[in-house]
Amino acid sequence: MLAVWLGNRRLTVKVNLSPPEPGAGEALIKVLLAGICATDLELVRGYYPFVGILGHEFVGEIIAAPGNNQLEGRRVVGEINLVCGNCPACSSGRSHHCQNRTVLGIVGKDGAFAEFLTLPVKNLHTVPESIPDEWAVFCEPLAAALEILEQVHILPSHSVLVIGAGRLGQLIARAIALAGCELAVVTRWDAQIDLLAKAGVPSIKEKDISPGTWDVVIEATGSPDGFKIAREAVRAKGIIILKSTYKGNLELNISSLVVDEITLVGSRCGPFSPALHLLQSKQVDPTPLISNRYPLSRAIEAFELAAQPGVFKVLLDPAE
Amino acid sequence: MLAVWLGNRRLTVKVNLSPPEPGAGEALIKVLLAGICATDLELVRGYYPFVGILGHEFVGEIIAAPGNNQLEGRRVVGEINLVCGNCPACSSGRSHHCQNRTVLGIVGKDGAFAEFLTLPVKNLHTVPESIPDEWAVFCEPLAAALEILEQVHILPSHSVLVIGAGRLGQLIARAIALAGCELAVVTRWDAQIDLLAKAGVPSIKEKDISPGTWDVVIEATGSPDGFKIAREAVRAKGIIILKSTYKGNLELNISSLVVDEITLVGSRCGPFSPALHLLQSKQVDPTPLISNRYPLSRAIEAFELAAQPGVFKVLLDPAE
Repeated sequence: MLAVWLGNRRLTVKVNLSPPEPGAGEALIKVLLAGICATDLELVRGYYPFVGILGHEFVGEIIAAPGNNQLEGRRVVGEINLVCGNCPACSSGRSHHCQNRTVLGIVGKDGAFAEFLTLPVKNLHTVPESIPDEWAVFCEPLAAALEILEQVHILPSHSVLVIGAGRLGQLIARAIALAGCELAVVTRWDAQIDLLAKAGVPSIKEKDISPGTWDVVIEATGSPDGFKIAREAVRAKGIIILKSTYKGNLELNISSLVVDEITLVGSRCGPFSPALHLLQSKQVDPTPLISNRYPLSRAIEAFELAAQPGVFKVLLDPAE
Repeated sequence: MLAVWLGNRRLTVKVNLSPPEPGAGEALIKVLLAGICATDLELVRGYYPFVGILGHEFVGEIIAAPGNNQLEGRRVVGEINLVCGNCPACSSGRSHHCQNRTVLGIVGKDGAFAEFLTLPVKNLHTVPESIPDEWAVFCEPLAAALEILEQVHILPSHSVLVIGAGRLGQLIARAIALAGCELAVVTRWDAQIDLLAKAGVPSIKEKDISPGTWDVVIEATGSPDGFKIAREAVRAKGIIILKSTYKGNLELNISSLVVDEITLVGSRCGPFSPALHLLQSKQVDPTPLISNRYPLSRAIEAFELAAQPGVFKVLLDPAE
């Protein structure tokens, strides 16, 4: 089969790979559409030493599910953490943090930039018929955006600033808007402003942020530069939510976090069911975020485009 | 009057200072006893460019309170933030974070290592008769320990690890023990273990900490080294509470905080009323923490002792 392979920080499109075989409890899934995420770009830059097929945002169709034949033909999205179910994290209801996990297209498990993938049946969520593939492929990043609302109780009276109006920042803005709070997103490009305006979300330029006034600041730039902006924007006793993963460390003044009693909250994967619900009810419409769509065979071009500033979601289609 | 003066990172005991004069709404307070805190030691090291009389932990007696004569003779402890009452932080119930604040013996306001100090009447709390001076002088750091319970809901089912068994760590352990949780304190010296044992709190050596298992970790070492231990000890989705202020920055791997969804909570000053209540009810007995007591005139020696490893609270007595 065709797949996008990462090895030695080099991406190649391989054409002769064998399709994966579903293990016990797994399903074989034909990928209908997949999305390129900032994490994919960071993996290519060496953020984490992954070797294998990239990709973790997808919608697909179950081709085979040994022992669960009734699932064949279902259109599904899939949670990306493959968990043991037995470790202390799994036993405590924190299976996303399973100590023995692999992660689709990120850690020790071949991913979704391929014609086929396998995932445990328990990871899969059936996509309601009314949600088209182009919407469903946003389920994973929208769930990651919703994780913020799972972790922090954002009140209608809060002011919330999102730093970063790219792929994830745009989805986060749409998710946070549901809380009814005062909301603004720091933008750099006109295209970002236009997209936010379509969703009714106000934009703000970095130079216009009043320092030390925002109750909650969400850092979603995908780069180390975002933290400084977030730290300056947040009020005393405020919350900074960290969404960016990138290679390298950051220098922090811990004492100032203590003096100002700032809370930092790391935030990663989120719940799929409410993400599907928001797509089905059209409370979140992600399609304006699609910048382009490439056949899987042209994935290298697609990655080059996705790395350009001001480009939003780039989709890969294995069938084209 | 006699007072401990910090200027150009040098401490001197000055003998001929004029007593301060109470401004509008302030009281003149005779200091009965004051305590040396890690922040005082960090100020001498240059953590913050304070010039003036050091000291913020004290118990005293009101000598004069223009306009509030009925307060004269009262024994009091005092909140250390002098606030404007009008800025957005004050108006939002976060007056400890007043944007125009001065802080007793720390920022722009002469402190408690003196025969006399002034503070606004609204900062003062009357000390119940049954609490001796040697207990009351611990009110400010005990309030800072209680701030953790104000910020984070620690459950009886939580496991809580305190890193640092010095002045503040010992008080934090006593405060957190009230939550009924599993609790251990990382110790370095036998004297620390003995003190904790007196309060019924278990000790643990750094090498015996199971990594990634503690629900809540409190970093109270007063030094940059504590963070690494805390980061290794905390479980995924766990909370690290930051209590240390020191000069300089720390290098952090932000991506790992995101992946493990760790929360960091900066924590500073806390509520005096519950601290007084815990002292009055003897739920917290701080007196075993007193390492030594010096006349104020020998403050330089007292500071040298307080900077030694394994030394707990050193008190200064202006009357001796």
